[in-house]
Amino acid sequence: MLSREENELITRVGQGSPMGNTMRRYWIPALLAREIAEPEGPPVRVRLLGEDLVAFRDSEGRIGLLDEYCPHRRASLFFGRNEECGLRCVYHGWKFDIAGSCVDQMNEPAENQFLHKVHITAYPTVELGGIVWAYLGPPERMPAAPKFAWTQAPQTHRHVTKVIQECNWLQALEGGLDTSHAPIMHRLLTDNAARGGIKPSNPYVRAGAPSIVVDITDYGYQYVGIRDLGETERHVRTYHFILPFHQIRAFSNDPGHSADAGHIWVPIDDENAMVYNWQYSRAAPLTDEDREERNLGNGPLHVDQTTFRSQANRQNDYLIDRAVQRTESFTGIDGINVQDRAIQESMGRIVDRSKEHLGPADKAIIQMRRLLRQAVKTVEEGGTPAGAGPSYYPLRAALEVLPRDADWRRILAPDITRERILETV
Amino acid sequence: MLSREENELITRVGQGSPMGNTMRRYWIPALLAREIAEPEGPPVRVRLLGEDLVAFRDSEGRIGLLDEYCPHRRASLFFGRNEECGLRCVYHGWKFDIAGSCVDQMNEPAENQFLHKVHITAYPTVELGGIVWAYLGPPERMPAAPKFAWTQAPQTHRHVTKVIQECNWLQALEGGLDTSHAPIMHRLLTDNAARGGIKPSNPYVRAGAPSIVVDITDYGYQYVGIRDLGETERHVRTYHFILPFHQIRAFSNDPGHSADAGHIWVPIDDENAMVYNWQYSRAAPLTDEDREERNLGNGPLHVDQTTFRSQANRQNDYLIDRAVQRTESFTGIDGINVQDRAIQESMGRIVDRSKEHLGPADKAIIQMRRLLRQAVKTVEEGGTPAGAGPSYYPLRAALEVLPRDADWRRILAPDITRERILETV
Amino acid sequence: MLSREENELITRVGQGSPMGNTMRRYWIPALLAREIAEPEGPPVRVRLLGEDLVAFRDSEGRIGLLDEYCPHRRASLFFGRNEECGLRCVYHGWKFDIAGSCVDQMNEPAENQFLHKVHITAYPTVELGGIVWAYLGPPERMPAAPKFAWTQAPQTHRHVTKVIQECNWLQALEGGLDTSHAPIMHRLLTDNAARGGIKPSNPYVRAGAPSIVVDITDYGYQYVGIRDLGETERHVRTYHFILPFHQIRAFSNDPGHSADAGHIWVPIDDENAMVYNWQYSRAAPLTDEDREERNLGNGPLHVDQTTFRSQANRQNDYLIDRAVQRTESFTGIDGINVQDRAIQESMGRIVDRSKEHLGPADKAIIQMRRLLRQAVKTVEEGGTPAGAGPSYYPLRAALEVLPRDADWRRILAPDITRERILETV
Repeated sequence: MLSREENELITRVGQGSPMGNTMRRYWIPALLAREIAEPEGPPVRVRLLGEDLVAFRDSEGRIGLLDEYCPHRRASLFFGRNEECGLRCVYHGWKFDIAGSCVDQMNEPAENQFLHKVHITAYPTVELGGIVWAYLGPPERMPAAPKFAWTQAPQTHRHVTKVIQECNWLQALEGGLDTSHAPIMHRLLTDNAARGGIKPSNPYVRAGAPSIVVDITDYGYQYVGIRDLGETERHVRTYHFILPFHQIRAFSNDPGHSADAGHIWVPIDDENAMVYNWQYSRAAPLTDEDREERNLGNGPLHVDQTTFRSQANRQNDYLIDRAVQRTESFTGIDGINVQDRAIQESMGRIVDRSKEHLGPADKAIIQMRRLLRQAVKTVEEGGTPAGAGPSYYPLRAALEVLPRDADWRRILAPDITRERILETV
Repeated sequence: MLSREENELITRVGQGSPMGNTMRRYWIPALLAREIAEPEGPPVRVRLLGEDLVAFRDSEGRIGLLDEYCPHRRASLFFGRNEECGLRCVYHGWKFDIAGSCVDQMNEPAENQFLHKVHITAYPTVELGGIVWAYLGPPERMPAAPKFAWTQAPQTHRHVTKVIQECNWLQALEGGLDTSHAPIMHRLLTDNAARGGIKPSNPYVRAGAPSIVVDITDYGYQYVGIRDLGETERHVRTYHFILPFHQIRAFSNDPGHSADAGHIWVPIDDENAMVYNWQYSRAAPLTDEDREERNLGNGPLHVDQTTFRSQANRQNDYLIDRAVQRTESFTGIDGINVQDRAIQESMGRIVDRSKEHLGPADKAIIQMRRLLRQAVKTVEEGGTPAGAGPSYYPLRAALEVLPRDADWRRILAPDITRERILETV
Repeated sequence: MLSREENELITRVGQGSPMGNTMRRYWIPALLAREIAEPEGPPVRVRLLGEDLVAFRDSEGRIGLLDEYCPHRRASLFFGRNEECGLRCVYHGWKFDIAGSCVDQMNEPAENQFLHKVHITAYPTVELGGIVWAYLGPPERMPAAPKFAWTQAPQTHRHVTKVIQECNWLQALEGGLDTSHAPIMHRLLTDNAARGGIKPSNPYVRAGAPSIVVDITDYGYQYVGIRDLGETERHVRTYHFILPFHQIRAFSNDPGHSADAGHIWVPIDDENAMVYNWQYSRAAPLTDEDREERNLGNGPLHVDQTTFRSQANRQNDYLIDRAVQRTESFTGIDGINVQDRAIQESMGRIVDRSKEHLGPADKAIIQMRRLLRQAVKTVEEGGTPAGAGPSYYPLRAALEVLPRDADWRRILAPDITRERILETV
């Protein structure tokens, strides 16, 4: 439970808000690289933290991310022409390069031009892992590039999609850091159900409710859900939370198909988020089937690849099928990620956390909120918030059935040395 | 005419508003019983007085009416599973019975559960006359069940539908207590017009404008529109207004088909109402044709029976046909009840009553508003508002052509003894 | 650049606003005369300066423009019956003549009627040039009728259309007084492009950026864009701005097809405008092709003639074709007027003028804003604002290539004698 003030503090990300200022200290996914695949291709609208921008790839292949509105008379540069090293407003032909410099004013005779008095907001970008990342903060505080293991993998071994979610980013992030719901909400009712979901025979479901341990680190935390499985075993699943909005989870531990996956919940504005979904296979390349995300529902089969709106959405109750809910899956909604989105959006645009009742199973969520508030405080005091450093590069997650007396930390998280753990909760 | 403050006072029904508090002292229609016909069927969203709820019929056939949002993390219980004596949230598997007790927390190991610390808002309901009624007020002030004559009739002899109206409940109620508009707006232009409406040869139309008498009672009032008809006769039609939002009118006095009908205008929120439409035949059972409401336009032929939205609506100007308006019916809109809804919605979401000009023909409306303000005052002073008692059970209405010197009260309203009339206006 | 306060002052036109009060001192286009072509035809909704009205042509052919809402109970008169010299509300049958007098109250017996106590707001109208003009100001300050040259032309020689624009009127007007954008935004990329637009070989495009001269007059101003063309010539185009929202431009100087054209940007409310587009041929009658406005995009081919909404609109990004933008036209949007609307709407509903950077090419816009503020001040001080007088009747515009040393004022603007010019900027 949060007070209304605390809830406002960590959910609101608009211009000048404390959480917005904090977010602006990190690299933020702005769009998929493939949306602006071609040099001199059409510009694309981007909305980040309530700010309207336009992205384009110039004739040299460099990426520009500018204020959407031309500083002359505020026409939208979405309608602009992507020409020889710059984006040109079609209204009066003012042209800007990727650094935001005005390089032409077609409407003024040469003697009247005032190029040097004009500048458009331009944010630095970096292309990594199929994503164009942007930095919207003070230039002198720009952190190292977001070099996660997955953003450095070859294209053959990684996959990323995105989808719009019609609610505040934080309640989506909370769902992603909540192992306790996964084998409940995403379960199938019979092993035969030909749908995406977790079969009842899966140890994850059989094991029952978890106890949670959170290792606070310098990037956020690692946490683990530990579930007793029969008399002698335990089901153990670890996750990483990297501030401000990254989740890493184990996707598969199959030998030969070992994979991590994760989400990034990027605030479009206070009431909408863009969810990035990635998968990274360490061994074999990903297959076409992997890239379909058939059982997840956030891939190209289910999400319009121009608007990034899902076919199943709040207007159609996510195509819930009550007969399926009775006999095949817990929710009657197809797609594990669609189930998440459905339930997170169902809480309203910004959930009222003053009315919730948290228990021990919500420990990871409680700690995440604490870290967010801490990060806001750090930024307000002039410091660098956790997670803005490069220490998260090698992080990976795990999913395993272990003997009950095994030391899960040692076995599953070799990359997190004990020295990095600041506190265990 | 009302001042803006008076208008606000009696139109607004949200949490904590004076009129909202007053409404919560009555049984309120929440949904049609047939919307949750089957035990363990899908839950249904219900919005009442601006509050979001979810209704379900449990495995024992009992009805639950709960807060839409799970007290754990505020996921919508609309997506819930209706299981063995309770509704289970699909997010973490918390389960609630119809009394609002939390009976399971799937996400917590047994030793961590805190069932007794959790309760969800649950409102008492009663199923009567094909409607599920809810009581949203203080438990100790719950009135007797809404046993109108029509709610106790066998199913064969009654019929009820509902439809969403896109405006405040009060201007719809005002239309229902306004006999003066009926033979004007609902009239046909020729006796041959094959449309729903009142033929020009009908005494109701022929008789012209009415004088109005209002008998204030302990439940609201009975009122009558008296219209001179030729030299020796009078057309007399009586209505009842039962606080806070019921109308009863005579539907037919045909021998063998004597019937009452009525509307209930239930606030969904300040800007939308759910209109319930009922009909009750005292003698013969209702026919399939009666249940179609072909000439009224609020029945299954014209209203989507899942969303309860009308095909003819404000977006399409109620399918007005100007050629029909010129030659066949006064409005050019099909369906007597659609005509009402069209004109009431045309006033805006909440009509500005500081700009109206009322006359003697509006007496019933003026008195109704007075009674509403009185009820608000009574509730604020700790009393029981008029109409919350059981005295309205036997009410019925009348429609008759009488000799001019007949005592209409004696002839038409045998059920309202003179002792119950507190004042005549 | 304007301060936020200045921006509010000249953009907002609602009831009681300074600019709204100023607008009400002029004749304002209310609708096309052909929308109410027939006596006793259906009434039509009109929204002007944020005020909801209804227009009708009575059985005598006279035009009524009344408050949309019946003063009795505020039902919309859009649903009314246009009967024998008046508009009758269908709710209770109150009837109003074009002067706003209540001439019948069907719901009251004769002895109860109070006709003389009721009046509905009724505005004077005049039908000129295919437009019904309304005067919404104080009766004693009503100016002379809007007798422009084009409004007095025979129907064969004039043409007028209208279209809804989804933004504040002022940014549309600004586009219309901005010669500098025209040969940029509206240009074609090759002379062969089979689209509406200005060919690269046209002197207007070849001549490059203009210098601007503004002659302030008693009606607003005449301004001219002067462009050097080669060594010896100049391209000269003049426009008139007549307060508060008229533009006149030269449409063609072809001998035998000499024509003026113009727009009127009428505020529907603060966030929407109705754009009237007219054309007036002085010599030959207009052809059917002229009336199609094929290359402009505001005519019947592209705009729904019932709703006056354009097929190409903000929801579909004006059907921009990026391939066409690369190879055929500067914008990739079809229709010169659609291009204007697209870019003006792209600035947002009310552009934030505190963020703009104006240059010498924006001189006409700067002066127009100054005149608007002046007009507001004049009205506030009890005077008559510029442009409300009849001095604009004979205005016409010009478009010509002249020898560089020619006196453009003498050659192009014979109707504006030097005495009328108050100041040149």
